[in-house]
Amino acid sequence: MTAAGEPTLTFWYEFASTYSYPAAFRIERAAAAAGVRVLWRPFLLGPIFRDQGMDTSPFITYPAKGRYMWRDVARLCAAAGVPWRQPSEMPRNSLHAARIALLGQDQAWGPAFSRAVYRANFADDADIADPEVLAGLLTGLDLPAAELIARAREPATKDRLKAQTAEAAARGIFGSPSYTVGAELFWGGDRLDQALNWARAPGLAAQDP
Amino acid sequence: MTAAGEPTLTFWYEFASTYSYPAAFRIERAAAAAGVRVLWRPFLLGPIFRDQGMDTSPFITYPAKGRYMWRDVARLCAAAGVPWRQPSEMPRNSLHAARIALLGQDQAWGPAFSRAVYRANFADDADIADPEVLAGLLTGLDLPAAELIARAREPATKDRLKAQTAEAAARGIFGSPSYTVGAELFWGGDRLDQALNWARAPGLAAQDP
Repeated sequence: MTAAGEPTLTFWYEFASTYSYPAAFRIERAAAAAGVRVLWRPFLLGPIFRDQGMDTSPFITYPAKGRYMWRDVARLCAAAGVPWRQPSEMPRNSLHAARIALLGQDQAWGPAFSRAVYRANFADDADIADPEVLAGLLTGLDLPAAELIARAREPATKDRLKAQTAEAAARGIFGSPSYTVGAELFWGGDRLDQALNWARAPGLAAQDP
Repeated sequence: MTAAGEPTLTFWYEFASTYSYPAAFRIERAAAAAGVRVLWRPFLLGPIFRDQGMDTSPFITYPAKGRYMWRDVARLCAAAGVPWRQPSEMPRNSLHAARIALLGQDQAWGPAFSRAVYRANFADDADIADPEVLAGLLTGLDLPAAELIARAREPATKDRLKAQTAEAAARGIFGSPSYTVGAELFWGGDRLDQALNWARAPGLAAQDP
């Protein structure tokens, strides 16, 4: 799937993650400018949080961190020119959306659908757990909504998302967005440029000040 | 202390914080380039963590986050050209160092001493809880070590550090490094440029993409 030697970065994202929203809208342009190919990999943070003994988002568990996050994301989106509305529900259940995105992750529509899900959650305050909302997003992209939603509910798809989430955990991922280049892990949208540099020239010594 | 209208940023830092080490070595040059004055404000994260129900650093509580942090800091220091050695103890007790730094926070020696403490902890793996280590750092800066260590132990100094930590908490601070510009809070060394921009031109609309 990836040409030998072509610099590649894997983008790991959870749809309930606020910080992943501006990251999803920035990554392709930044990667193209850097000459790096992006693999989109949706996963679920819930099982990873649970394995660490957390029953919800740290932004809920630690209110000071949560208050800061809302303000920080609003600032980041303003700076990036990405529309932002604080959703009325957080975190939203991202299971169905992730299963659908998984089906298209290696085709052009997967990233496009993923961006649409983020926009629905964080710009339009739509409930991305609602199958009708997801069907509307698919239809808006001229995709066969009923067929994809049915495929997303098949056991094989469920198992694939479980396996992809397990792979994220095995790679040391504990938050979203995360980026991997080989075994190297980068966490947070503010690490994208560093991860792209790593994809082009791996190694501590290769990193510019 | 600050000329009216002069853009000012307050730098809040905890000596046990790994990420604050490269931040302390970067801030003055970046602020000078931006025409922003920096106020150095040491504080303690321990009481803030405890108020949130945490008995130690999140890097200890969440091992995946901890493993990532060590790698991330090593990369950041390599990129910044700052020497780095993973300390044999983490987190180190920063109480005495913070009390001393507080005494000099509005004089030139306070920031210089603070950088020396960070270098001792994270480049030299020295125990910054040890009064002899702190005395050595002060002497190395041609400062009256015995006098300052004695003043740091006075009740008035202890109370000032408690009050400064309480002020940090009241400002919503929950991690280090943090930067404040008026009521606006920025967390993490990767937010420094954004904070400096805010100091020069506050407001969401003023932030460039």
